[in-house]
Amino acid sequence: MIQCPRGTRDFLPDELEKRRSYENVLRGVAHRFGFREIETPIFEDAELFILRSGPGVMKELYNFKDKGDRDIALRPEMTASVIRAFVNGMGSYPKPIKVFYFGQCFRYERPQAGRYREFFQFGAEIIGSATPETDAEAIAMAASMIKSLGLRNYKIRIGHIGVLRQRIADIGVPKERTAEVLQKLDKKLYDEARPILRDIGVKDEDAEALFDLTETVGGVEVLDKVPGEAGAYLKELVDILGVMGVRDLEIDLGVVRGLDYYTGMVFEAEAPVLGAEKQICGGGSYTLSELFGGEKVFSTGFAIGFDRILLAMEKEGIVYEEKGIDAYVIPVSEDVRKDAAGIVSRLRAEGRSADIDIMGRKMAKALKYADSIRARYAVIVGRKELENGCVTLRDMKTGDQKEVPVDNIFQDA
Amino acid sequence: MIQCPRGTRDFLPDELEKRRSYENVLRGVAHRFGFREIETPIFEDAELFILRSGPGVMKELYNFKDKGDRDIALRPEMTASVIRAFVNGMGSYPKPIKVFYFGQCFRYERPQAGRYREFFQFGAEIIGSATPETDAEAIAMAASMIKSLGLRNYKIRIGHIGVLRQRIADIGVPKERTAEVLQKLDKKLYDEARPILRDIGVKDEDAEALFDLTETVGGVEVLDKVPGEAGAYLKELVDILGVMGVRDLEIDLGVVRGLDYYTGMVFEAEAPVLGAEKQICGGGSYTLSELFGGEKVFSTGFAIGFDRILLAMEKEGIVYEEKGIDAYVIPVSEDVRKDAAGIVSRLRAEGRSADIDIMGRKMAKALKYADSIRARYAVIVGRKELENGCVTLRDMKTGDQKEVPVDNIFQDA
Repeated sequence: MIQCPRGTRDFLPDELEKRRSYENVLRGVAHRFGFREIETPIFEDAELFILRSGPGVMKELYNFKDKGDRDIALRPEMTASVIRAFVNGMGSYPKPIKVFYFGQCFRYERPQAGRYREFFQFGAEIIGSATPETDAEAIAMAASMIKSLGLRNYKIRIGHIGVLRQRIADIGVPKERTAEVLQKLDKKLYDEARPILRDIGVKDEDAEALFDLTETVGGVEVLDKVPGEAGAYLKELVDILGVMGVRDLEIDLGVVRGLDYYTGMVFEAEAPVLGAEKQICGGGSYTLSELFGGEKVFSTGFAIGFDRILLAMEKEGIVYEEKGIDAYVIPVSEDVRKDAAGIVSRLRAEGRSADIDIMGRKMAKALKYADSIRARYAVIVGRKELENGCVTLRDMKTGDQKEVPVDNIFQDA
Repeated sequence: MIQCPRGTRDFLPDELEKRRSYENVLRGVAHRFGFREIETPIFEDAELFILRSGPGVMKELYNFKDKGDRDIALRPEMTASVIRAFVNGMGSYPKPIKVFYFGQCFRYERPQAGRYREFFQFGAEIIGSATPETDAEAIAMAASMIKSLGLRNYKIRIGHIGVLRQRIADIGVPKERTAEVLQKLDKKLYDEARPILRDIGVKDEDAEALFDLTETVGGVEVLDKVPGEAGAYLKELVDILGVMGVRDLEIDLGVVRGLDYYTGMVFEAEAPVLGAEKQICGGGSYTLSELFGGEKVFSTGFAIGFDRILLAMEKEGIVYEEKGIDAYVIPVSEDVRKDAAGIVSRLRAEGRSADIDIMGRKMAKALKYADSIRARYAVIVGRKELENGCVTLRDMKTGDQKEVPVDNIFQDA
């Protein structure tokens, strides 16, 4: 028996109805925030992702040569594609450009709880603006999305990559080794960072002070410890977010984000219920367009791990109730099958969701099927009732039945 | 500058809003017909598609080896995946199983008008039923979808592969050469079919009678010329469709469909406005599950070429009007920026789509931007008005302005 490829999933109707419902919650929030959707191809020139993430991305990429010998890769994330699309076709749009996206991404890694080879991301980018209001808009929307989904227990942590970059430069780390150091700090691997910094010639006390800085974590009050412009910037940002109703933020200068292209504010959201793999959202301000041949343009964006956040909701016990359909039409005998077909067509034309027995089943079996597809009513079509212009309407929950006019089946229902 | 790969497209917000709107029309119809969505992976074991379509499919497949040396292919269509998902996980579901899908498919072919390497299909399958009512349900939904999209000029042609198969067997074509002959008939390449049939030893007059049969085209009245059970079946099907409000059908025994697995009724819809590439929908009854290791189960399905039908709508001059947002909030001066942020947040919490100037623009520029994003109202926040508990509401269409209470901005709007 052929199965779906390892790390991918089939979403059968119950599961998918739930997922679409939550997807639509996120779409609704994006719409209220004035973001519009953008869609890019499932695959891109592999170079695009290497430019964004460095050659290290190759080992997790689904990359291949197409029949025209092009180096192609399934997208591992969507920011690179969105910025490429901006450079190609949206350069002249009035700024800021506020877009969101939702879709499949692909990473060749070992599948585990909440980690798939085909996974789904919902994200947003604000392109062409670099103000505290811009960052506030992104964080406020991420927060609103998490809240709208009903997740109760989550934490948003805000940092500033500029603070660390400045400190790293100040203690004598050359530009070409900054990424290496940041990667260790991102994962709080201080023991691995120490020899690197020593090798560069950084003084031990400076190294320890750097580690301390990444451990600057706490409420808004720790902002007093954040030096310079970045501290003032974050204060302003937190102020605006407060006005926008986003409080309970944590300041955490240890939020580094893996990638080179972040320029200032960075943030993450996590759901503690998920344990080690608790991150459900990450983002920040960045520039990327110049890597793809465009002008340098400041942007802020974030992505929500859709599978991850759904897993967190499930672990919190959030239950989705499937909707079912309005009516299931059952012809009692062979000679009223076409009448029944006419009735189901009319219900559908009136905008109701309606289904009909197409297998010629007996009543008991047909009612059982109606139940299995969560029909709210069965519309039972019998010859005798039809002659009086009626059908029988059965409430599938209570079992109550009554005769109703065939022209107005749902008059009282 | 990196572009999107040849034959793929970026859908920028205006275009995508239109596409989503039409996608939702199709979703609405599917829901009213009692179909539920299913989603399968973007790629599958390449073998799945070879089993369905024969090894000939390889030349158009985006296939590659993944890092675990698996033979993988991007899906060229979705029926095979849906039936695989059925075999894997839905075997015990009450029948019939009515599912629909929407998503990207991939074919490596020369891009041209309405043909892309990444294209979109909307389709449906009724699994586990083989009655005229089943086929009627599929055709009625396809017809309802085309009509609901607003396409004016289209034709639905219904045939029966069983009629041709029977005739082909009767005139002495062995089973293993049937597919070859059907492929020529599908494309009406009689001159290429003749030598094949001669080679098999079919009499010339039988060959010509076979060609005549595929030219049996016309209204319901030509059904009198369709022999045997198939003729009676199609009559019953057309009767049911009539009751369901689907008339204007054409009977066309030349509808062959390229593939081996069709068993009975086959149908196509075309939009003449598209010229040579006029097919917008195709389907029929088939069995496929046994090829994937499951039991043999009869199904009926169809797929709509989403790009193709949108192109037809465009050629018919159907215009989509973008929706825009409710309000764009503009702070008049620096000192009311946070008040403005509070106002936009409240509008969003009330369920309105609202955006705010995040770039500190002057009034004229901000209003121009509001226009560009199709805001219906501008909410102008000034210090003096705020002190009176008011803001200025500007109708972006008429330019009319009035002061309204900040707590109830849209009271009269």
